[in-house]
Amino acid sequence: MTRYKAIISYDGYNFAGFQRQPNARTVQEEIEKTLQRLNRGQAVTIHGAGRTDSGVHAYGQVIHFDLEGERNVEKLRFALDTQTAEDIDVIALEEVADDFHCRYAKHSKTYEFLVDIGRPKNPMMRHYATHYPYPLDFSRIEEAIGYLEGTHDFTGFTASGTAVENKVRTITAAKVRLDRERNFLIFTFTGNGFLYKQVRNMVGTLLKIGNNRMPIEQVERILDEKDRSLAGPTAAGNGLYLKEIIYEE
Amino acid sequence: MTRYKAIISYDGYNFAGFQRQPNARTVQEEIEKTLQRLNRGQAVTIHGAGRTDSGVHAYGQVIHFDLEGERNVEKLRFALDTQTAEDIDVIALEEVADDFHCRYAKHSKTYEFLVDIGRPKNPMMRHYATHYPYPLDFSRIEEAIGYLEGTHDFTGFTASGTAVENKVRTITAAKVRLDRERNFLIFTFTGNGFLYKQVRNMVGTLLKIGNNRMPIEQVERILDEKDRSLAGPTAAGNGLYLKEIIYEE
Repeated sequence: MTRYKAIISYDGYNFAGFQRQPNARTVQEEIEKTLQRLNRGQAVTIHGAGRTDSGVHAYGQVIHFDLEGERNVEKLRFALDTQTAEDIDVIALEEVADDFHCRYAKHSKTYEFLVDIGRPKNPMMRHYATHYPYPLDFSRIEEAIGYLEGTHDFTGFTASGTAVENKVRTITAAKVRLDRERNFLIFTFTGNGFLYKQVRNMVGTLLKIGNNRMPIEQVERILDEKDRSLAGPTAAGNGLYLKEIIYEE
Repeated sequence: MTRYKAIISYDGYNFAGFQRQPNARTVQEEIEKTLQRLNRGQAVTIHGAGRTDSGVHAYGQVIHFDLEGERNVEKLRFALDTQTAEDIDVIALEEVADDFHCRYAKHSKTYEFLVDIGRPKNPMMRHYATHYPYPLDFSRIEEAIGYLEGTHDFTGFTASGTAVENKVRTITAAKVRLDRERNFLIFTFTGNGFLYKQVRNMVGTLLKIGNNRMPIEQVERILDEKDRSLAGPTAAGNGLYLKEIIYEE
């Protein structure tokens, strides 16, 4: 048995998310169907580092899976890439140690969130950015996002009723920039792990602050009081990208 | 009767093109359906300045149509925008003179063509840029594109069997730039009119020259000899955008 690690990208628009579920098209199922064909009809289970939600995109999702025997990795990558649906690309593939687990091996993840602030909006981007046509004070967002960096209990920014007990995470970088040519606001968050809907709740809160409907210091209060109801709305999944995963050596 | 001119944008992916045709979804039909509803069930015909092909996008297509009586233009724009399919946006609307015709009034058009030169390609852009994963010498393209500016007979760059007799057109600007961050090559062509498939044939030829499979001077030869078989392949429609139309006063 050999364990393989692959980096994949996908357009999340036509997926009900990464994780397999009944009666819905998922990234996991599409890749497992191809792997089964490449494995003489025997089922193969894949694991994903990030279980992206419905509509969420990926440039650098990481998966792992096991196959009997040894394969030429470039031939396997090519077969997997070309035989899987056109909205999934298999970018890289390598052999890894038998005990590597893409989700449990220590890593940092980078998420990007794209906001189309153009008026009119760009119809080509309607599945690839969240449209926010309201006035925004960029300097307020820049100031507020600084409070998110560091090690905090992010309970106030996760969906209520999440099963995970420890909600302390570290965000090593939280940035926002304005692409004036394309009329996009681009948020980037890097950290050692993110809670369910955390990025989308942080973005929804930052937009509300930028729109002057919430004080800048509210970010600190949400972290301190761990109260989801103090935060802004959950931003739509169509603007979210799992950009990169970097494993510790 | 009042004549209205509107600027519209659309995502061409799910359209068989602008112009109405049987058994296919078109931009014209979608807008005419909405206008008929807004016109107490009476059919309305729209005219488009550029009859974009299947898969081709628009940021600044111009249409015109007539309605009985007078309407508030912002209310009409809003109704048309929100009641038409989500892949079409109605950006602007104004009253114009009864004899204005969006296609025959003197104007210049700007087309943009996006080439994704990234390896791996970007799955989010698969309907919005043409993927060209082969080596390209950017300086060769820059040099070749210069031959296209000016007034020429573009017979060699149009689809054979075109009905239009006069194939002399003026290109006032033909530019290419490299967006290194997004790994895109962006072509821009402005002129007083373009022949059927002209932009896609020019791009297909320029890419072949950039890939070193055709001499730079071939562009001049295609113009001189008016021979389509000397030009490169027609680039796919998914990278083409009708960007802007400017009317003479």
